[in-house]
Amino acid sequence: MPLRDWMEIFSVDDHVIEHPRVWLDRLPAMYRDAGPQIIETAEGNHVWRYEGKLFPQIGLNAVAGKPREEYGMEPVRYDHMIPGCYDAAERIKDMDIDGVHGALCFPSFPGFGGGVFARSDDKDLALQAVRAWNDFQTDEWCASAPGRLIPLGLLPFWDPLAATAEVGRLAQKGTRAVSLPESPAPLGLPSFHHPTHWETLWDALEDADMPVCLHFGSCGFVPGFSFVGPSRPDEVAPFAVAIATFSTNLMWAVSDLVFSGMLQRHPRLKFMLSEGGIGWIPYLLERLDATWERHRWYQNISRTDRPSDLFRRHFWGCFIDDEHGLASRETIGVENILIEVDYPHSDSNWPNSRKRVEEALAQIPDEEAHAIVELNARRLLRVEG
Amino acid sequence: MPLRDWMEIFSVDDHVIEHPRVWLDRLPAMYRDAGPQIIETAEGNHVWRYEGKLFPQIGLNAVAGKPREEYGMEPVRYDHMIPGCYDAAERIKDMDIDGVHGALCFPSFPGFGGGVFARSDDKDLALQAVRAWNDFQTDEWCASAPGRLIPLGLLPFWDPLAATAEVGRLAQKGTRAVSLPESPAPLGLPSFHHPTHWETLWDALEDADMPVCLHFGSCGFVPGFSFVGPSRPDEVAPFAVAIATFSTNLMWAVSDLVFSGMLQRHPRLKFMLSEGGIGWIPYLLERLDATWERHRWYQNISRTDRPSDLFRRHFWGCFIDDEHGLASRETIGVENILIEVDYPHSDSNWPNSRKRVEEALAQIPDEEAHAIVELNARRLLRVEG
Repeated sequence: MPLRDWMEIFSVDDHVIEHPRVWLDRLPAMYRDAGPQIIETAEGNHVWRYEGKLFPQIGLNAVAGKPREEYGMEPVRYDHMIPGCYDAAERIKDMDIDGVHGALCFPSFPGFGGGVFARSDDKDLALQAVRAWNDFQTDEWCASAPGRLIPLGLLPFWDPLAATAEVGRLAQKGTRAVSLPESPAPLGLPSFHHPTHWETLWDALEDADMPVCLHFGSCGFVPGFSFVGPSRPDEVAPFAVAIATFSTNLMWAVSDLVFSGMLQRHPRLKFMLSEGGIGWIPYLLERLDATWERHRWYQNISRTDRPSDLFRRHFWGCFIDDEHGLASRETIGVENILIEVDYPHSDSNWPNSRKRVEEALAQIPDEEAHAIVELNARRLLRVEG
Repeated sequence: MPLRDWMEIFSVDDHVIEHPRVWLDRLPAMYRDAGPQIIETAEGNHVWRYEGKLFPQIGLNAVAGKPREEYGMEPVRYDHMIPGCYDAAERIKDMDIDGVHGALCFPSFPGFGGGVFARSDDKDLALQAVRAWNDFQTDEWCASAPGRLIPLGLLPFWDPLAATAEVGRLAQKGTRAVSLPESPAPLGLPSFHHPTHWETLWDALEDADMPVCLHFGSCGFVPGFSFVGPSRPDEVAPFAVAIATFSTNLMWAVSDLVFSGMLQRHPRLKFMLSEGGIGWIPYLLERLDATWERHRWYQNISRTDRPSDLFRRHFWGCFIDDEHGLASRETIGVENILIEVDYPHSDSNWPNSRKRVEEALAQIPDEEAHAIVELNARRLLRVEG
């Protein structure tokens, strides 16, 4: 009985679908028309319009409550999804049904890390749109359930100084973590290997004690050979190939960061590998260490810091379902594992998350189970019990 | 004592450095000048010249016998490497020193899967160059030590009919396996998802009972965000990032193939995941199955065939050093694991491979160790004991 009744599940990866007034209510008047707003198409679908462009799906993959046989990339109208997707009071009810106490909720329309705003033409509008989302998240969504909906922030990361300033504002508002792309490179920005570009931002995040969530897919890079280059229609892989391999984005991100030299300059910086699973971590750590053992003498990487040591100090793996990862938890580090529910996406077990977690942790000692489902998240996100 | 004296180690991934006369002795006279030949640069380095272009390193990473502190991307002259790199009689001596009985040797100048010839301007020259390499491999390299150096073949895969014909020729010559890129897509060719393009080739390989080696890196795709797109010099990751993550190429390849529908049309086709390690396989199989469970109802993938079942029927994982993979061998399938030595590359443990294998297999029952180091390879490559 590793999951005791008094253990509170904290999911570090759920998703909020923004309701139609998130930006209408918050953007300065001059930006209201170009800013994100919902319009209804001739076919009766709800779509976001932003900077004159249409974004086809309001709640990509928001399928909680549907039988699997009906999964698709839907829904296309707000009334095609359950209200907990966009209404905080309903979300809390759905979390209660699911046996889940706390949740960190990622954005939907902006992309998991704000990539839509990073690609905006008007970067001042984009900055205002980021701030509006952050205000929505802290003042509306999370304010309705303190200690249960935990504030996550977006950053205008295309401009490191503006991002640094936003970290300061978020710290004042009580935001507990920020979401950044797994790599800025696919968005046309300097990679995390740049020696100076990101330094003020990392300093600010360290000072604010705010972990960085790297959610798979947030940089826009879709894994799979037939998605990387141009492919003719009859040669493109089914999207299942990408769904199955999105964790390779996080394997790349971990490798980038441990070999960047940046972690040594920012010893208090913390990264969460959102929705990446954990079963690949033992392999990657062994391979990173072997690479370091053999190649550090001539490559531009640290000769003194073993990658697996850096990993355990700086990274937290996050999983929804991962039997192999749980079986390998000692190799990963029990303190470095967090649980996710992924409501309302297709990987979620809602409304049976607690039951599923109970089964998955059945063979694990109480103390380790408690760390994984609750205590690690409370410590990392500074949420008192 | 799982590694008994009478168990013979069969390495399914070593590398031959072609000597200067491989193509000079075999290409038709009209192609001899444009074909691959060694020239000496003003700096005294040996480089390959092919179709008028220079290829800077004759033996990239051929470091066997050097201390790690001296590793680089060298050597640049034949006399900078040990003779076993290019001389079959010396190779056998080095295998004896290393306690290794058998070896499948990949090409060097052509790329692990013949990618250099796939990128040739003159495709008839390229076809002749492939055939010349195959003749070198069977008639010279492997003929000198039957049953110990096991013939591997290259294919002119840019032309499926020519490749199909070459499979027939190789079957006559006793070739036991062929090497193909992990994906043809990065080489500008139709992906493995194309419904018809590769069918005659797969048929021929099934008929010849020739496994296909997918060696990481053979398609030319280098994993890592800063290698995928254009990056400024101070933002490019150290190459250690790619070395540590090359297995993600094989994770993509497995996902492509199990979701392509092709394995069901070719139930006897076999793939070896060369130099990819095995520690990631349990995670990937679990993730592939979960993806299939949730998404098969609307995606263009099989609704009846579980990916992990397809994997165990069609794939063999190959490792040099992989503690986590060996500890997870029951989940992978002991019958689906093969060992590699990687002589003369930097990942090799030469001249201590047998000692290292002995340590790595110390906790494994004799029968399983025997399967992994010898019997699985003998069965797959049809090499009698």
